[in-house]
Parts: sequence; C-alpha cells; structure tokens
Amino acid sequence: MEIKPIAHIYTDFKEKFGIPRQSGLVKGLVGRIVFTPEFRYPEALREMESFSHLWLIWLFSEAVDGGWRPTVRPPRLGGNKRVGVFASRAPYRPNNLGLSCVKLDSIDYDCPDGPVIIVSGIDILDGTPIFDIKPYIPVADCHPEASEGYTAYTKEYSIEVNFPKELLQKVSEDKQDALIELLSGDPRPGYDNSPDKKYGLSFDSFDIGFTVENGILRVFRVEKRE
Amino acid sequence: MEIKPIAHIYTDFKEKFGIPRQSGLVKGLVGRIVFTPEFRYPEALREMESFSHLWLIWLFSEAVDGGWRPTVRPPRLGGNKRVGVFASRAPYRPNNLGLSCVKLDSIDYDCPDGPVIIVSGIDILDGTPIFDIKPYIPVADCHPEASEGYTAYTKEYSIEVNFPKELLQKVSEDKQDALIELLSGDPRPGYDNSPDKKYGLSFDSFDIGFTVENGILRVFRVEKRE
Repeated sequence: MEIKPIAHIYTDFKEKFGIPRQSGLVKGLVGRIVFTPEFRYPEALREMESFSHLWLIWLFSEAVDGGWRPTVRPPRLGGNKRVGVFASRAPYRPNNLGLSCVKLDSIDYDCPDGPVIIVSGIDILDGTPIFDIKPYIPVADCHPEASEGYTAYTKEYSIEVNFPKELLQKVSEDKQDALIELLSGDPRPGYDNSPDKKYGLSFDSFDIGFTVENGILRVFRVEKRE
Repeated sequence: MEIKPIAHIYTDFKEKFGIPRQSGLVKGLVGRIVFTPEFRYPEALREMESFSHLWLIWLFSEAVDGGWRPTVRPPRLGGNKRVGVFASRAPYRPNNLGLSCVKLDSIDYDCPDGPVIIVSGIDILDGTPIFDIKPYIPVADCHPEASEGYTAYTKEYSIEVNFPKELLQKVSEDKQDALIELLSGDPRPGYDNSPDKKYGLSFDSFDIGFTVENGILRVFRVEKRE
C-alpha cells in the first residue's frame, strides 16, 4: 500500500545520536509539526485543543534502507541481549513505522505555513515525515495495569550531569533544562563504557562534547555547528 | 512510501457495524494475528510475553476507497457535531491507518501457520491487514493525566441489554459475555433513535437482530449466517 507524509516534524535533533529512546522521557524537547500543503486545513484540527496528548505515526527515515531482522539488541539491555523486533520499538522493523505519544502545547493558526502544531516530549529526528496524528484517548490508550516487560529494569536509569556554566550559557535559556535532562538519560549505547571516549551530540545548532566516567557525564565542549 | 502487511487479524466481525469504537472497551473480544509467510519468525516475538499489552497499526480497509475529509462527525457526539479528522480516530483519514491497544493473551508457536498471537479487547474487522506490532511501554504510553477531550462526555455511556436465554444459548458460551458487553455499548449510530428500527449485527457466525426502545436493547433474533 502507498502512504504519503501528511506533515513533517522539526526538532533540535539533526542526528540520531542523543535522541531520547522513547517519547515523553524529556518533556522539554519541542517539535513543530508542519503540514504538507495538500493537508493544510485548519478545520482538520478542530477540537484538537480539547486533548492534551497526541499520537504521531511517523517514518524511521534513517532506518529505511537498513532492512529488518527478526531480533534486535535494545541499547538499554546492555546491547548484548536480543529480543524480537515485535517485542521492541526499534527502528529497523518491517515498514519502519514509529509511534510516539507527545504533549500538545499549542497550535499556531496564524503563521504562513500554518496551522502548525507545537508538541513536546518528542523523540524524533528533525525533518521526519509524519503519516498520521490522532488524539490520545485515555479510556482506550491509558493502561496503568500494563506490565513493563524488560523496560522495567531500565526506566529509572539516569546519570549525574556536570555541565560547566560558561558552556551551558551558550545554549538558549529555554532549551537548557531539556538538554541537561537529555544528557542525564545517558545517550551512550548501553555497551559503550570507556571513560576516555569523547562523544559528540548534535542538539539545536550546537555540537555538545562529553565524556562519562564513574557515572558522571561531563560536558567539555559546546560549539556552534557550521 | 510503500508499506505491506506483516500479518492479518481474524476476529468475530465480518462487518463494520457493531465493532467497538475503541480498543479495550469490550475486553472479551478476541483476535488471532497470523503473520504472512514472509514475516513468520518465532524469534521476532522473543520477550513479547513479558509485556501484557500491544499496539497494532493496521489498515482501515473499508475506508481505503472513501477518501478523506478535513472534518468528521463522531457517532458518539450525536452525529451532527463536526471535529477535525486529526482530532478523531475516524477511519476516513489520510493514509487510513488505525491504532489499537490490545491485551496479549498468548502466543501459539505450535500451530501450522504459527507463531499466532492471540489478543483481546479488539476493535478490528475480520481479515484486517496489520502493518506493525509494538509492545505497550507504560513509561512512554501511559498518561493518566491526559485529558479526555470530547470523549469525556461519552465514555461511560451504556444501555441495558435484554437478551432472551434461548437466543443467547445459540452463541458459544465463551463468547456470550463479550456479545452482551458489546451490545450494552449501543452499536447504533448516535443520530439513530427510532424504536421501530430493526438492526442486524454480524458477530461470529451469527446475525444478531435487535431493537432499542426507552434505553433498553432487546435481542429478537440470533441466526446462523449462510
């Protein structure tokens, strides 16, 4: 079946490395959903503001050419335990469809490419095609009784972040908290644990350099990208 | 983009009329997910049983040729109030993708077309193509704080069901409760309110005839379909 993007989402992630592993984990990460001209109808969003959360169905665009395998190694399980692809939310899956629950912040009806939907808690690469947007309906979607499977072991995991003030100030103030929260989620692959290794994470218009030693993440560089 | 079914789901609904309006509303409704031969790998389900709930992304197959409109009339709002298609879970939407949260009951690894996933709480037509299956991950997907939007007015709605014993006994015992619960959700379109009108609902291998008067749904016929 042929499907086509109804919109694209614009976020602070130009690269895959560093993107939160699920939606909602870093609440301050914002995305702008801009409809393609064909689907740009203000009335298609009528009553959307009565909901607080939305589902996005989107394309794992970086995974499209990678094919799929029956099993994957979730980074949070140390990267050496294999689970079934349908028991995971991994990108390398048949049809490459992603699913995220995001918070609806606002709708901008007045901008030239509007209506634009502003959402937060995103876990999506900049420019990602969106195939559908649906309201989160608690009676159907909210299941506090649901078991956490293997995610139970890892969901609370976080590390201390040491971010020198003079570096942090380079980032615009409204994005500082989200960046720190993002780093505290430990963006390293689970199997990667060398204190000497230098990581570079792309966020907003910056390259963020850090190391991790003894459970503390230290930022040593914040530089404007070209 | 081209997507293709990884599986099909087999349910008791040969017709659209009567299918619950969301997943999880009638917990006893069971579906069997059978993978297409290309995707029939037991290891693709490894660790799935550690989760209790799954997401299904599927095709609103009956809506495919119907096109889409920017606004829809949810039956539960009386059928005369319009909301935006992206503020609804209606089938007539761009790309015709459905999203359901279902309970994972079991996985049958031993049947000839296995592995087959048995799920419940379904809201899907018999034979529907499935594009993806993902685990429900509470930390990302469960939002008790989410607002209910316009669904708040209607979620508790149900009607009394009068189902004569001699008719009910025609249906296999393990499906009787689900059928009654289904009927108590009031399958009529919201704008349909004539006491003389006779409705016919297809369930399992039966045609179920009923009327609704003064808030009571009376079943008057249970017949084997040809």
